Formats: sequence, C-alpha cells, structure tokens
Amino acid sequence: MTPSFERLQQVLKKLPGLGWRSAERVALHLLVERPAALPELLAALREAAERVGACRECGHLAEGDTCQICANPRRDPSVLCVVERVPDLIALEKSGAHGGRYHVLQGKLSPLKGVGPEHLTLTKLSARLDAGGIRELILALGNDIEGEATCHYIQERVAAGRGVKVTRIGFGLPSGGDLVYADATTLRSALEGRKNYE
Amino acid sequence: MTPSFERLQQVLKKLPGLGWRSAERVALHLLVERPAALPELLAALREAAERVGACRECGHLAEGDTCQICANPRRDPSVLCVVERVPDLIALEKSGAHGGRYHVLQGKLSPLKGVGPEHLTLTKLSARLDAGGIRELILALGNDIEGEATCHYIQERVAAGRGVKVTRIGFGLPSGGDLVYADATTLRSALEGRKNYE
Repeated sequence: MTPSFERLQQVLKKLPGLGWRSAERVALHLLVERPAALPELLAALREAAERVGACRECGHLAEGDTCQICANPRRDPSVLCVVERVPDLIALEKSGAHGGRYHVLQGKLSPLKGVGPEHLTLTKLSARLDAGGIRELILALGNDIEGEATCHYIQERVAAGRGVKVTRIGFGLPSGGDLVYADATTLRSALEGRKNYE
Repeated sequence: MTPSFERLQQVLKKLPGLGWRSAERVALHLLVERPAALPELLAALREAAERVGACRECGHLAEGDTCQICANPRRDPSVLCVVERVPDLIALEKSGAHGGRYHVLQGKLSPLKGVGPEHLTLTKLSARLDAGGIRELILALGNDIEGEATCHYIQERVAAGRGVKVTRIGFGLPSGGDLVYADATTLRSALEGRKNYE
C-alpha cells in the first residue's frame, strides 16, 4: 500500500461502524474499483461542510438560518421538546410522535466532565421562553444522573415562574421488551411510571 | 434533515458495506458529533486522489512512478504473478506466499461485457516479457469461464514461445473448508488437483 492510501484507511476507520477491514474495502472502492466515487464523495463532503450549520432557533441541522422544523408553519410553536443532541431529535422525528418544535441543548450538565450550564444552550432556551408563546416544555433527556441533573436545573433555574408546563418523557419497559432482560433501573422506572388500567 | 445532508448520506450509502442507517450515522458523526472528522476526511481523500496512481510497471497502487513492490530489491523479479485487479494483489500480499512481482490485468476477457484483449494490460505484459529476466508467469485468476479464457489467451498469445514457464494457481477445497458445503465445481477442481500422499 502507499502512505496516502494508508492515511485514508486510518481516517475511514475512525468513522462509526467501520473497522480496519471495511475501511480498506472503502478505500479500495474509492481508489481502484470505482474511481468516480472519490470526487463524488469529495463534492458531497465539501458541500455539506459549507452549507450545513446549526439552526439559529433550535440548534438542529440547517442550511441557512432556520431549520426545516422551525420554518414549518404546521409545527406547533407552543410545545418545545428539549433534547441533548441532534441525533436524539432525529430519532424523535422518525417516531413522528412530536408535532411541536425542538431545542437542542448540545450536551448535558456534567461536573465530572467539566460541562457547566454555560456550555449548554440554556441562555438561548431562556430567551425563547422570554419571547413567549410556549405553553409546554417536554424534557426528552435520558434518565442517567447527568440527565436528571440537567432536567432539574432547567425546571428550577430556567423554566420556573414563567407559567410554562414542564413535563418529562416517560421511562419504562421498551416496546417489545421482555421483563426478564430489563435492568433494575428500567424496571424501577416502569413501576414508578405505572398508570391506571383503563 | 437538510438537502446537503441527504446528498452526503446518499453518496455514503453507495460505499461498500454501508446501508442507509450506517450512512446516516456516518453523516451525523461528520456533521454533528465530531465536526473535526469532516475536514480530516476531506484532506485524506484529497491527498489520496492527488497522490495515488497506478504503478507504471505492474498497475498496483503507487505514489510516484513505481509501486513499493516493484521498487523493492528483495522481491524476485523473475517470478511474475498475474492478477485481475489490485484487491486480488492485496489479498495475495497479505498471505505472504508470493515473493516475486505482480502484473495487474485490470480485468479479464469477457466478450459478453465487451471486454477484449485491448482493454487489458496485455501489451504491457508482453513488453515486460520482452524486456527479459522473467522465468515464471503465475496466473492467479479465478476459474470461472472468463478467468479460464483469459489464462488461455495469455498462455497462447502472450507467453508462448518465449521460454517462460506459465503456471496457474491451484484450485480445490479452501483451508478449513468442509466437503459437505463445497459446490460441485470446487470438488471437481479438488479432485483434478489431487497430489500424491507423501
């Protein structure tokens, strides 16, 4: 192999889901088997790097100032779903279960990792609440310690006293999940989150 | 999602081993989760596209005129292994079983697909034989019809009458292979390629 080939293979190997063998396969594809694929990939990467940024409102991926969700007049602007990162937002979008807008925190509070409130988009969230028209804030963060702390902080320091209803997504047994394979925390959440049988 | 994001995802999806889901994961990695990965990948692709070409001698990947194998004085220049494509050469190199040099045909004869002798590097192979010093030509092509025809052509039209020994790699049961799972052609090759028990 040549040095540039090996460098390409190393960079490809860092991508999620690619191991050493599949990185070699992709590099060979680009350099030998289908040489037209390389300029095509270069162009797509360059274009994405140039055009894709963050939505000024919510932090989702956007081309231009505003993302497709914030710009969509059919999305309910009064319900704001707070997520940690863009992939969480995408997962929720795929479920089709949320008809409102989003707010991407860009992380969660973690004193151990040195992530404080100033590293999250909390000032922006506060400004969005100030701007009015928001009726419900759905906190769609995980229920690990950091997620809990972040929810608590938002409830106490950002949303409190503004007449905004703050809710949190439900936790429990996943759909199709088997009790036998669920961990203790999940089962505890499932019991705590129990509802009346209708 | 944005148009440029989706275009990038589509281009990534065409790479070997990547499906729709993994292409999305890689695109998110590049644009959201580890933004430093995108310029890194761009640079590696650009560098590879600029620097990596074909060896003037054998057709293997090379930076500059000659590949690392042709430039290596410890490789036996008198034994030339003929392969269809660069990935075949790489597979043989990994086995460590060949100490000579290579010749990449860049395909095999296929009248049905319109691949004739003029599309392969046969003129170059002939010139290498003319240049002398080659004692053995190992044909490392598959044993499908096209591989058979290509071997036959090389034997009859390129190598004949030059005092070069022409051999062909062995076919048979793969290492660790089970007779029960082997197809009829493989078993036929294995029987034909039988050797005296020593």
